[in-house]
Amino acid sequence: MSSTRDIDALIEMMAKLPGLGPRSARRAVLHLIRKRALLLTPLADLMQTVAATARECLNCGNVGTSDVCDICTSEKRANGELCVVEDVADLWAMERSGVFKGRYHVLGGTLSALDAIGPQELRIPRLIDRVASEGITEVILALNATIDGQTTAHYIADQLDGQVQLTSLAQGVPIGGELDYLDDGTITAAMRARKQI
Amino acid sequence: MSSTRDIDALIEMMAKLPGLGPRSARRAVLHLIRKRALLLTPLADLMQTVAATARECLNCGNVGTSDVCDICTSEKRANGELCVVEDVADLWAMERSGVFKGRYHVLGGTLSALDAIGPQELRIPRLIDRVASEGITEVILALNATIDGQTTAHYIADQLDGQVQLTSLAQGVPIGGELDYLDDGTITAAMRARKQI
Ligand SMILES: [Zn+2]
Ligand SMILES: [Zn+2]
Repeated sequence: MSSTRDIDALIEMMAKLPGLGPRSARRAVLHLIRKRALLLTPLADLMQTVAATARECLNCGNVGTSDVCDICTSEKRANGELCVVEDVADLWAMERSGVFKGRYHVLGGTLSALDAIGPQELRIPRLIDRVASEGITEVILALNATIDGQTTAHYIADQLDGQVQLTSLAQGVPIGGELDYLDDGTITAAMRARKQI
Repeated sequence: MSSTRDIDALIEMMAKLPGLGPRSARRAVLHLIRKRALLLTPLADLMQTVAATARECLNCGNVGTSDVCDICTSEKRANGELCVVEDVADLWAMERSGVFKGRYHVLGGTLSALDAIGPQELRIPRLIDRVASEGITEVILALNATIDGQTTAHYIADQLDGQVQLTSLAQGVPIGGELDYLDDGTITAAMRARKQI
């Protein structure tokens, strides 16, 4: 290889990012090197800033720059509705649709016997605390329409049964589909047509 | 959006990289934030280093960390063969195949009437200087099998006609294909079967 060790190391790190492979990492690094003053230095600076400031919300698991995120601290979002998602990317997808005005709870994954992920590995105990302490009247289970997603939804529904109104996204989520792949209109339709479990 | 301004800005910058779009940029940034100590900080550090040290070789256009790259300074590579490529990514693809032992000349693109790219916008004058001054006996035109690539090859062949042996990659480069997409074996076969222009 004609490229030096640092450039090779940068390509190797970039190639491990989700969505990139070795070839696109090489293209991206060459692009960044060509525009190093305009792109590479600002990108590196921004990454340093985000590395220093980004953290997970202690309450809901959302990503932000304070211990408790903007949604959890906003009184406007305290409308009694709590939307449970698997991942921060799903929370962002919901926010882009603009249809939901309540708060979120990010589980950080799904229950999985195969991967030995039980309720303690997710934010399920914290969810149950929040339902009791935050005056929640409705829990919307916006989990992916996968087997693990639905298993997790049923487990949470059992835990919260009788304490709160439980709903799930209905119309529009295709079988086997993942929230983060859906367009905003589909998410809006699914949220509006949510049904009692 | 629940993410803060810096996180949004980072996603936006990542989304502009070749090979990434908004969705994969969001996934990549979440992945980096989750592993910020292990991934995001080292990646940012490496980008700073590369931004500070990477430069284009003044002789051939390859990317390296000195004014003249390792291939240009290596006496072992001074075998009289000069391989002309469009892009550094093509040079890297050639190097991965390991078949070529000479030096390179990176044009930095192709001639294009549409985009008003003439010989002066590429490293063509420098190529003609090098052929005269570096004791070059064979110029291998390893340009992409696209219309612009072949137009550029013909232009260079006209300029160097009679001064040096001119060859081009032959067998194995598919019509409309780009070098950087080919496997190493195909590149090796094309190099071994190169033919006189
Ligand atoms: Zn929060
Ligand atoms: Zn060089």
